[in-house]
Amino acid sequence: DPEEREALECREHVRTQLDTVVDFWLKYSHDTVHGGFFTCIGRDGTVYDELKYVWLQGRQVWMYCRLYRTMDRFHKPEILEAAKAGGEFLRKFARVSTSSGQWKCAFCLTRDGKAVKIQRTIFSECFYIMAMDELSRTTGDKDMQLEAEQMMEQLIYWVRVDSSGLGRPQLPGDVATNSMAIPMMLLCLVQQLTEGRGQEVVQKYRELGRWCVQQILQHMQRDGTAILENVSLDGQELPGCQGRLQNPGHALEAGWFLIQYSAEWGDDDLQRTAIDKFVELPYQNGWDKEHGGLFYFLDVDGHCPTQLEWSMKLWWPHCEALIAFLMAYSQTKKPELLDRFSQVYEYTFSHFPDAKSGEWFGYLTQEGKVALDFKGGPFKGFFHVPRCLYMCERILDDLLANKD
Amino acid sequence: DPEEREALECREHVRTQLDTVVDFWLKYSHDTVHGGFFTCIGRDGTVYDELKYVWLQGRQVWMYCRLYRTMDRFHKPEILEAAKAGGEFLRKFARVSTSSGQWKCAFCLTRDGKAVKIQRTIFSECFYIMAMDELSRTTGDKDMQLEAEQMMEQLIYWVRVDSSGLGRPQLPGDVATNSMAIPMMLLCLVQQLTEGRGQEVVQKYRELGRWCVQQILQHMQRDGTAILENVSLDGQELPGCQGRLQNPGHALEAGWFLIQYSAEWGDDDLQRTAIDKFVELPYQNGWDKEHGGLFYFLDVDGHCPTQLEWSMKLWWPHCEALIAFLMAYSQTKKPELLDRFSQVYEYTFSHFPDAKSGEWFGYLTQEGKVALDFKGGPFKGFFHVPRCLYMCERILDDLLANKD
Repeated sequence: DPEEREALECREHVRTQLDTVVDFWLKYSHDTVHGGFFTCIGRDGTVYDELKYVWLQGRQVWMYCRLYRTMDRFHKPEILEAAKAGGEFLRKFARVSTSSGQWKCAFCLTRDGKAVKIQRTIFSECFYIMAMDELSRTTGDKDMQLEAEQMMEQLIYWVRVDSSGLGRPQLPGDVATNSMAIPMMLLCLVQQLTEGRGQEVVQKYRELGRWCVQQILQHMQRDGTAILENVSLDGQELPGCQGRLQNPGHALEAGWFLIQYSAEWGDDDLQRTAIDKFVELPYQNGWDKEHGGLFYFLDVDGHCPTQLEWSMKLWWPHCEALIAFLMAYSQTKKPELLDRFSQVYEYTFSHFPDAKSGEWFGYLTQEGKVALDFKGGPFKGFFHVPRCLYMCERILDDLLANKD
Repeated sequence: DPEEREALECREHVRTQLDTVVDFWLKYSHDTVHGGFFTCIGRDGTVYDELKYVWLQGRQVWMYCRLYRTMDRFHKPEILEAAKAGGEFLRKFARVSTSSGQWKCAFCLTRDGKAVKIQRTIFSECFYIMAMDELSRTTGDKDMQLEAEQMMEQLIYWVRVDSSGLGRPQLPGDVATNSMAIPMMLLCLVQQLTEGRGQEVVQKYRELGRWCVQQILQHMQRDGTAILENVSLDGQELPGCQGRLQNPGHALEAGWFLIQYSAEWGDDDLQRTAIDKFVELPYQNGWDKEHGGLFYFLDVDGHCPTQLEWSMKLWWPHCEALIAFLMAYSQTKKPELLDRFSQVYEYTFSHFPDAKSGEWFGYLTQEGKVALDFKGGPFKGFFHVPRCLYMCERILDDLLANKD
């Protein structure tokens, strides 16, 4: 069976890649003096800045735990210890109390844990929650689960009740918007907090999960021909650049979150929408027909985006596309979805991995040349690459097992 | 005299360019309904977003006034009226009172003047001051001059006494730094507020001017071999990416501010330092030997900068380089400075101007291809291009006049 042989080869490749990526971060990113992880790591593993970005601390703890907990070959004390040390660093330093008496997580810390910057968004908190919940599953520590759920309550309050605790001044021209990132991250957290847990927890977050799905679906615009990154609170298109912005990587990521959700609740309509609109459309609108790869940003009316990096090819949208197409295929077995997966796979593995020093480059020019050659930076850590490889390996395992 | 013929040709070219650039903005940027200027203007003049960026409102008022006031061919009612309308829009809408009872300028307004965003920096205020002072010189309105000076007092307080009014939370890991942009902008404002005014005003800002120069000189680092963008308050190199950052465009801009200052006060040592260190070094370290043009950001130790746009070629560093080299040449008559000017001139005029629709592109790839094709955006307005052409025309006028 040539198809099976191809799947086996692909799984072998993905597995080898995952091993080398994990090795890279185990070798270069651990701060054995102050705890936590270095995140600014050069091409060859050199730490070129000691700042510790909190998104990336939380994500690395999450990823280590997930690997340790669910894949035999990563069930090693070294990985568990690193995850625990990272979690300890986060608990000790990431939370900063604000004047409003609420807990806010810093965006960036010094090597020894002093807060450098606080973002007026919810994302540091999101990755803090992911880390704590996954760590509690790995170690059995109920306090951590409780802490994750408490932080989650605060997030929900900021998003759905009153955002003033985030610290942004209320300005008359700054109308509230529904940005894809918010419901997408919250849906991810609902899945994180409820997966495999009892009915009580599932019920607790059920309404929130439904709300997130509805909020995500509002981003289908232009008679269902485009996914727009920002819409009004009542689901209308917003004026100007903000309203016309497309972010194919985000749409694809939301796509596979929706596929997972539709599988969990047996919702076939949602599955169809997820695949046709959130997986297929961003590919149709976002793939560069000239040079290959997914654009970072696009304007739905064809204006030039104002983001200087709009035409660059970033690693993470390609990671999300691989997961989305492989998951969509595994749920539907439609061959065209496998073709898309192969096309993205081909581009990704011929452009991003660094054969010389391991791990992946993150930032290419439109033409596919490496534009920034570091392996870790303020927004690139141990997350999108290993999560993609991990998810693909698992899905390929299932596909191959069901073939037998 | 072939040299004189070349200077005449150059002045002719610069003059024609300035005329077409002014025409472009007169034609496409005026909002005759709500006042102020559209700043998001596409390649062909289309307004692709109605947001009004305050930096660019202030800069356009300043530039219109400067042209009206000092160049005969721009002494036209149309330009004066546009400047006054822009100033009125700014006075009416740009200032937002904050909880601390101080005046802060918004960063961005809706078309009808509602504040959308406030930056926690001083730059909106800087361009507000430039606009008000230049407008007061043009119209003779003493209230505006007073307003500019009052805003200036507040800026000085934020920079030299207490920055908490800017709204940034004080965090233990966020150490105060001396960023080039701050003393550079303040020195520019000192020159703006004092030029041609009586001894009283000159004396009032004399100490501040000296302080700015000292602050700028602190950015000479590595035994005088590099200009670094951020240093500690006592003039030491900072750790990490922030400390190693070079911004050649900023250094060159600071360079010609220093040359102007040194001419004003007859300080030959400062002139030498300005030219050798702030004009020549950024060129030496920042010019792309492979593709030509000035890099946007560089790391002094050769690490890859984390700014995604580090290798792009932006219009404004080239504008600043043209002014800096031509001014340096006009003060010293050293032929190597004229050679540099010619090299930057050649790259700039063969890459940035849009022959089809007028004005300049702002953002090129490292290889010199247009990456973003709009003429105006959140940070590109009617400022660097016309200021460069205006300054070069004036310097060439002087050079040619002195030849005769």
